[in-house]
Amino acid sequence: MRCEVIAIGTELLLGIIVDSNSAWIGEQLALNGIDSYFQVKVGDNFGRIEASIRQGLERSDAVICCGGLGPTQDDITRDVIAQVMGVGMRRDQAIADKIRHIFEARGRVMSQNNLRQADIPIGAAPIAQMPGTAPGLVCPIGAKVIYAVPGVPSEMRDMMLGTILPDLRRRAGQSAVIRSRVLRTWGMSESGLAEVLAERMRELDRLGNPTIAYQASGIDGIKVRVVAKCTDEASAAKVLDAEEALIRGLIGHVIFGVDEESMELAVLTALRRQGLTLAAAEQVTGGLLAARLSAADPPLHTFRGARVAPHGGSDDAADLQQRAAAAASQARAEFGTSVGAAAIAGPASQASGPRTAPVALAAVIADRRQSEHIILPADRGRLRDFAVISLLDMLRKALAA
Amino acid sequence: MRCEVIAIGTELLLGIIVDSNSAWIGEQLALNGIDSYFQVKVGDNFGRIEASIRQGLERSDAVICCGGLGPTQDDITRDVIAQVMGVGMRRDQAIADKIRHIFEARGRVMSQNNLRQADIPIGAAPIAQMPGTAPGLVCPIGAKVIYAVPGVPSEMRDMMLGTILPDLRRRAGQSAVIRSRVLRTWGMSESGLAEVLAERMRELDRLGNPTIAYQASGIDGIKVRVVAKCTDEASAAKVLDAEEALIRGLIGHVIFGVDEESMELAVLTALRRQGLTLAAAEQVTGGLLAARLSAADPPLHTFRGARVAPHGGSDDAADLQQRAAAAASQARAEFGTSVGAAAIAGPASQASGPRTAPVALAAVIADRRQSEHIILPADRGRLRDFAVISLLDMLRKALAA
Repeated sequence: MRCEVIAIGTELLLGIIVDSNSAWIGEQLALNGIDSYFQVKVGDNFGRIEASIRQGLERSDAVICCGGLGPTQDDITRDVIAQVMGVGMRRDQAIADKIRHIFEARGRVMSQNNLRQADIPIGAAPIAQMPGTAPGLVCPIGAKVIYAVPGVPSEMRDMMLGTILPDLRRRAGQSAVIRSRVLRTWGMSESGLAEVLAERMRELDRLGNPTIAYQASGIDGIKVRVVAKCTDEASAAKVLDAEEALIRGLIGHVIFGVDEESMELAVLTALRRQGLTLAAAEQVTGGLLAARLSAADPPLHTFRGARVAPHGGSDDAADLQQRAAAAASQARAEFGTSVGAAAIAGPASQASGPRTAPVALAAVIADRRQSEHIILPADRGRLRDFAVISLLDMLRKALAA
Repeated sequence: MRCEVIAIGTELLLGIIVDSNSAWIGEQLALNGIDSYFQVKVGDNFGRIEASIRQGLERSDAVICCGGLGPTQDDITRDVIAQVMGVGMRRDQAIADKIRHIFEARGRVMSQNNLRQADIPIGAAPIAQMPGTAPGLVCPIGAKVIYAVPGVPSEMRDMMLGTILPDLRRRAGQSAVIRSRVLRTWGMSESGLAEVLAERMRELDRLGNPTIAYQASGIDGIKVRVVAKCTDEASAAKVLDAEEALIRGLIGHVIFGVDEESMELAVLTALRRQGLTLAAAEQVTGGLLAARLSAADPPLHTFRGARVAPHGGSDDAADLQQRAAAAASQARAEFGTSVGAAAIAGPASQASGPRTAPVALAAVIADRRQSEHIILPADRGRLRDFAVISLLDMLRKALAA
């Protein structure tokens, strides 16, 4: 089963909007065992959209059109699909009523243009999920199918998960359940992970299920993705649980989170479990640590605050770790928390190599003081990013100890 | 002159990486008067890359291949281009030497695989810009051309700006100089801007040069892009200057920056000009304000620090503005700066409407105290983003007063 993705909109070609929808759709297709060999971006042009859809139907079994379902004259996806299907349009009364209702609920006046969104190709079925005013469509064409979804990411996702992916799986005769789990790691290189997991990888190559893949994700570390293909949910969950346990036995110390769990969430969860609170001194991370922690804990119940300030004290590299520990203690005292953390940068030195900077991290938990001296890239943006993730990872490990 | 973009890499189809390169290339093509009607993503598959390039050459005059120039077996763009050109490969000694030199300079051992990157199609010319180990290529094929650039954004951009765009313009017989300027606004809706600029837009429609377009950019406000097409740099600069002056006369109060100038940079620049320093109290923005200001002023010379803390004081909405002003004064005293700023949130109330929250902003500059009461979306992420940009805009206006 092959499915192409066509992202429609001149603003995508002009680079005004980056097409992240296709990437998300591609990921979902892969997770559902559907191949996607081509993804195309095309402008709001009848002939070129038509050519793209026709080509997509030639070389694939299904085409997902994303965008061009709005109420303006530019939005012609519906009309092009009708042309490809060789049918006319009909006004769908139920959709028209829904659109009217949405405008009423928002207390806004509906223009007649908006009713264009209720005009759909004859033979097309509206998608049940309709979070906005643009209906999605399932348009059968012989044994193949064209789907149309709006370009608004949240609306597109609802329709993909609610209707299109199940429909594609049914068409593919895909009765297997495919589920994945991402184990997020920090602190080991991809080749390091591959070396430790090599033997298990070879076993899995032989067994065929589950599979493991690495995704280097920059400042988010390296993701280890486990994909299981089973007959039902329960056995897929079982396979994933067993594999996760096995992998944790090998590289558990570098796994900080599962699926969408960020490093800051892992730290906040550990703090909450132990009834602890955290404050930070940000002399090198400039508020980025606070911004990330507060986004995950908006009322600042567990992360209680931070002081962002320039370097204090001497530029002497020798006592860098001591000064970091002192700053962490001071943050703890200032905000009345049980845990304090700090990252401070020392002066660039010959010893640390060119384009690098020494950074000291410190965590003070109850009567335990811990500090670390690391060498980071001197480039300011990367220095901040690495210092934040390193400090969070240090806290995570200290809290687990 | 038409140019297609083909982004190459299975990881793009699988959604592991979002293809933002094509968007950037598309923007540059548009700015240089080159049409781009299709952009395609294709995996690391010989036949499918070949089919995409051949189709691109059929319907366009030029094709830019982005990615697949690395040293591994997956990186086959060079080989596919040789196949489409109908030629063999040759080892380019100058490139081989460059690659060796890069490894030596980094003190790393080069594997023989890396020399694959020096094998290029016969008849292809290496691109002079080569910031990494992957050479870019210009591959003429009849009257048309295939360009190859690496997927690493910074390397790709160097080659686009240094070689490909000038080459495309030369091929297009594009002797005109096309230059653009973006005026970044905050505080007016797109329809509001359009109304004020309507008369000028009509004049420009008649004159044809320069042109103006709006780009709604979410939390970055609305960009007004002016594009001038002239015979030389000097007259393009003159047209842009004159148009900018005219537009500033109409909407100058909402323009905070030009081109890449962010709101925080505008505030920092204004502070520096007046010899002022800034500190902030972040009770609702959770460190995001500090993270943005410190990214633009890493040594914290002008932005001297912030205190990130939970709500203090009562939940009484009445004195919200007074409390914000007090917090701003306190930040100023604590960090010893000339300017203090604060954003604090009040309790959600019936009065402000559903899903909204009242926020008070305050700026204290010398003996001037200024505060404002605004209603923001209650959604935490948006609340923070809007509070930060609103506070920065308030500072910007206060400093200009």
